[in-house]
Parts: sequence; C-alpha cells; structure tokens
Amino acid sequence: MPADALNAALLPAGLHDVLPSEAAHEAVAVERLLAEFAAHGYRRVDPPLVEFEENLLSGAGAAMAKQTFRVMDPHSQRMMAVRADITPQIVRIATTRLANEPRPLRLCYAGPVLRVNGSQLRPERQFTQVGVELIGASEPDSDAEVVLLAVQALSAIGVPHLSVDLCVPKMVERICAGLGLPDDEIRALRAALDRKDVAAVAEVGGPAAALLETLMSASGPADRAIRALTAVELPEEAELDRRRLTSALAVIRAAMPTLTVTIDLVEHRGFGYQTGLSFTVFSRDVGEVGQGGRYQAGVGKERSTGFTLYMDYILPAIPVAAAPTRVFVPHGTPWTVAAGLRADGWVTVAGLAPVTDAVAEAKRLQCGHRLADGVVHPVE
Amino acid sequence: MPADALNAALLPAGLHDVLPSEAAHEAVAVERLLAEFAAHGYRRVDPPLVEFEENLLSGAGAAMAKQTFRVMDPHSQRMMAVRADITPQIVRIATTRLANEPRPLRLCYAGPVLRVNGSQLRPERQFTQVGVELIGASEPDSDAEVVLLAVQALSAIGVPHLSVDLCVPKMVERICAGLGLPDDEIRALRAALDRKDVAAVAEVGGPAAALLETLMSASGPADRAIRALTAVELPEEAELDRRRLTSALAVIRAAMPTLTVTIDLVEHRGFGYQTGLSFTVFSRDVGEVGQGGRYQAGVGKERSTGFTLYMDYILPAIPVAAAPTRVFVPHGTPWTVAAGLRADGWVTVAGLAPVTDAVAEAKRLQCGHRLADGVVHPVE
Repeated sequence: MPADALNAALLPAGLHDVLPSEAAHEAVAVERLLAEFAAHGYRRVDPPLVEFEENLLSGAGAAMAKQTFRVMDPHSQRMMAVRADITPQIVRIATTRLANEPRPLRLCYAGPVLRVNGSQLRPERQFTQVGVELIGASEPDSDAEVVLLAVQALSAIGVPHLSVDLCVPKMVERICAGLGLPDDEIRALRAALDRKDVAAVAEVGGPAAALLETLMSASGPADRAIRALTAVELPEEAELDRRRLTSALAVIRAAMPTLTVTIDLVEHRGFGYQTGLSFTVFSRDVGEVGQGGRYQAGVGKERSTGFTLYMDYILPAIPVAAAPTRVFVPHGTPWTVAAGLRADGWVTVAGLAPVTDAVAEAKRLQCGHRLADGVVHPVE
Repeated sequence: MPADALNAALLPAGLHDVLPSEAAHEAVAVERLLAEFAAHGYRRVDPPLVEFEENLLSGAGAAMAKQTFRVMDPHSQRMMAVRADITPQIVRIATTRLANEPRPLRLCYAGPVLRVNGSQLRPERQFTQVGVELIGASEPDSDAEVVLLAVQALSAIGVPHLSVDLCVPKMVERICAGLGLPDDEIRALRAALDRKDVAAVAEVGGPAAALLETLMSASGPADRAIRALTAVELPEEAELDRRRLTSALAVIRAAMPTLTVTIDLVEHRGFGYQTGLSFTVFSRDVGEVGQGGRYQAGVGKERSTGFTLYMDYILPAIPVAAAPTRVFVPHGTPWTVAAGLRADGWVTVAGLAPVTDAVAEAKRLQCGHRLADGVVHPVE
C-alpha cells in the first residue's frame, strides 16, 4: 500500500490528524476569533463533549439526532450523546446555570463536534465550531451586532472578500398565512420557491402569487430588495419582519459601508430552527464560512441570535503565518543562553549530543539558523 | 431542588460546564503552555477525538482499555474508541505519518480526553491534557530536556513552588534480575517495596535485600540519593540506569540550580509503560501537576520521552488574570468609535436600544466604565 493510502487507512473515514503547521494555523485562528468575540463583550464557556441524550437532542438540538453518536453512562445507566453541535449546549447553559445573569447575555465558544456521517460536500465527521450566542435580545441592533461581529472576526483572521446574505426564513410562511392560504398550499408554494420555479408559484400561489413573484425577483443586492419589499403591501407579521430587516440593514450599512450585502427574500433551507433575521457569510473563493440567525432559546423561549463559524471551511481561505524561525542550539549551550534566544522570539532546537558538523545538523533539524560562539548565524 | 443541585443534575457525574471566567482562564493557560513548548521547537499536532479501537488501545494505550468509551462506526462497521489519553495518538502520528521526519521529533498537543469512570481522587471524567513527546531520542540530555521544559512551562503560567521527583520505574526489577532472583521473588519484593515494608524486603530479598534497603533509605533529596547509589555496586543494567540518571540530573541542576529535585529509587506505580527515567512534577499546595518519562514508541520501539500535564490539577494552582475592563457603549455609538476603544484594549458592551439611565445600565451589564460624549468614564 502506498504511504498515503496506509496513512489514510489508519483512521476512520472523515476523521483526520491535524499535522504540525496546520494544527498551529488552526489554533492561532481560533484564538484570534475568540479574542474578537471577547473584545465585543462575549464571554467564553466550555461545555463537555458528552451530555445526557435528552438534554442535547431537545429543542434546537433535535435536528441533529441522526448525526449523533451515543454511549451508555455506566454510572446513571442513561444514554449520553457525543455533541454534534455546540449551540444547544450554550443555550442550555444560558437558560439554566446562567439564568440569573443580566440580559442580553453574550457568550462565545470553540470546540470540536463529532457527527455520525459526513456529507458529499463535507466528508469530515469531526470539525471545530466557533461561535457566539446573544441571549435575551430582541432588538434589530442585536441582529446587526452578530452579523457585524461575524464579518469583523473573519476579517481579523484574514478571510478575504467577505459578503453576507440575509434572509428571513419564516417570512414566506407568514405572508401566506397572513393571506389566508391553507397549509397544504403553503407547502406546495414552499416547494416551488425552493426550486425557484416561477411558473409553479404563479399556478399554486393564489392570492400570494404576485407578492411571492416580486420577492423572488427582488432577491439580490440588499438595497434593491428592501426597496421592492417596501413597495408592496405585506400582511402584518411579514411587515414586522420587513421593518426589522430594514433597521438591521441600516445598522450594518452604517458600520461597514463597503460590505457586500445581499438579501434572499424566499430562502429558508438550512435554517430549521431560526425564527427571524438569519444570515450566511461567504468568502468569494471558498463559499460559505459561517451561518447564524435569530431563534428562541430554551423552554422560556428567550429571544436570541448568534452564529457558528466552521473552521474546516475557513482555514483554506486564510493565509498561513510565517513559520517561526528555528535556531539550532548545539549540545552544551547553557540554559540561560537558549532562554535568552527564546525571550527574543527564536524557537530553539537543542542538540542532545555533540555533533561534528553543526551546519549539517541544523539543516537536518529544519533550522534556518544556528548558534555558534554566542552568535546566531543563518544556515545556507 | 435547589439551583445548585438542579444544575448538577443537568450533566452526568464527572462532567461539567466550564463557565465564563474559568473557561477563559483555562484557555489562556493552555495557549501559554503550548507557546512555551513551541519556543523549544515542539510542533503542535491535533489527532481526532475518536479512532479505531485497535489503534488507540494497543501499546501504550492498552492500560486505558477499561476507561475508554466505544462507539460503532457505521461506515466501516468497526468499533471506534473515544480517546481516554492523547499520548498513544501522538505516538501513532510520530511513527506512521511522520515516520520520515528527522529525529529527534518534537511534538506537542492539547485537548480533551474522556474516561468511563472518575476516581475517588479525581471524579472528573473529562479533562484537558497538555503535553509533549520527544520521539527518537536516547540521550540523558533528552531526559533532562523534558523535565526542564515541564518545569519551565508550568512556571510560565504561574504554578508556584514546583518540585520534581525523579524515578527509574524498572530499576528494582533490573537489579533483582541482575542478581539472579526468580520472577516470583521479584514480585514479592516489588509488593514489599510498594508497602515500604523494610522487614519484608529483608526477609524475601535474598541477595538483593541489602541493596534494596539502601535504595529505600536513600530515596529523598536528589544529591544524597545519587551519592548512595554511587556508593553501592549495581548489576550492569542498573548501573547504566544510574549513569543516565546522574547525567540527566547534572543537566537539570546546571539549568535550574534552585529547583527542588528528589529521587525515589524504588518508585514504579503509575509508570506502567515507562522504561527509563521518569518523573512527577509537584506544586506544593496542590500536589501532582504533571507526569512523564521514557518509553518505547510504536512497533519500531523508538526511544522516546515526554510528559503530560493535567489542566484540572493545574488551574486551581495558578492566579486568575484580571478580568478585562468592560465599557458600556450606548446605543447609536458609531461602529468606528467602539472599534477604536477595542483597539485600545477595552472590551465594549453595546447598548442595543436607548436607555434613560446609562450609569444604571452599565452597572447592570457588569461594566466598570461607560462611554459618554466620546470619553470613557468610570462607573461608581
């Protein structure tokens, strides 16, 4: 078996070892993201890898039930689930342990999740989620805050050419319900919209047809979409969605005037539990890098929003920091001398025994420099 | 149920949520440890949380078999194990994927592990392991390097009053075998030594009795132990152990003259797979904070050493960094103004809607400062 195939066979499909430079790359990016969240007042929490199944897979977590590994807890004789998503854990912490903390409650997190199956687009079964939750906040400014924070944090780690697509996943249903359409027609319309099938929308749309066609054709650049939405008459609940969307967009525009923002007025896929303004962040060359939106947290249905960034999508998009400069420190160099080099920012690689050719040894150990006679020399 | 009990009941025994200040505290300490390892030339790797059972539980991992959760992999129909120890994973990476990298190979890691049972002393079933492996290094200087690095890194994060206890877990067996004792007598002696039972050692020790009594009574301050060991005649293999121990101690002494170092010449418990110089690092008020030692890595039995630090033991010993200074930024403050404050090191907490009493709102949101008229004011 060739070395690559042998290596791949060592691990189950969709699981991999993160090797030297890549592991440092990911760690630096994650810490930088968390530092941005912290600077905006988001405090880090770190839930465990496993929890009782019924806690992890209730509410927002229910969608992940089929993607979740279970193990028996020998202590309680109850089933535990290995987390496939961190958001439900943060919601649990916010609404139980931190129920008495003042609202809005800003929390952030980073950690690995494990899934039973990869997908064709994403064969990985373990990846790192990094995100924030803004719990107990209903204002359009809170919708804007998380969009801006996602973009700001991704920019800070060097993700290039960012754009944001806003949507309100429940708006179509609210329009149809507001116009008195029965549930089965709403489902047929939803399917037609998902196919972007204009003819079918016209056919089954009834009183909503014209309005939905307008929304479909108005999707695109944010300002145009808002103008189109303002020009039509909307049922009451959808009109509230429009006002919130308009307010949040104004805050986003004021903060980041050059950010590319689009609005998809009929999108809802991938936003199963979102109840209000939702969004996807894209980087031009790699596609989707994060997703978030408004939801109701816990049994008390606290109005909340947040986002999750996926490190496996993000890392290919960002520049790798220059490898640190390694200096070979020959055997017998006093500890204080090597410590002095480290204090100056060098990575020291100690010789563990005398060698006759220090230059060759430095090269062999992948050092670009070596210490000789108390001075650091480059190694050609 | 009182709030504390209710909260505790949310999670399985031995698993817990790391809440705001504590989570940041742990993250900062882990990154600082990894930065120290990196400065010494150790490169970070990050293996997955689960692996095929037979890989994870072979060799050095076999000891953890009863402590390891298993799940079925639906893809391969093989059993996977959730890691209960990271060291076997690093050894696997070093001896397979990185088999062609030059030796010595310096690797480091940090991550969570999960265990089936807690112990009375350590009820936790999930904790963070942080450590290094120095693969393909046989010199006494490599033994010294990992001891020094453990102490240096723990000092760097503020663990106070460190001391190191050295041992050579296999030395007693080598002495007894060298003196021709049969296996059953060696086992009886080993048990007597574990009980520190001088009378039993004298009784069952035969030709080794006097020597072992000397080793028992010489255990303690390192220099005294080395002197006692040098004064007696040792079988050949044990004599090699003595020379290596003496050489490594000299390097440690030269680098850190004020470090408290003890030697236990008859210790072996907790060092199941170590083959040579091993060590435990203590912090005076919390006890053991890390452990390491020499072993043979992989099927090629590469001579290696390393150590693991346990964050759950370490965190109570180190000072918590001052909480960052939070400034309340009222609703409507321009993004650039808040960004300017963040660039100056402030944590900004945005008001999401207008409030009538900004001082009260700042206090409610746990901000020690607030922005008003473009100036940061302390909140009394």
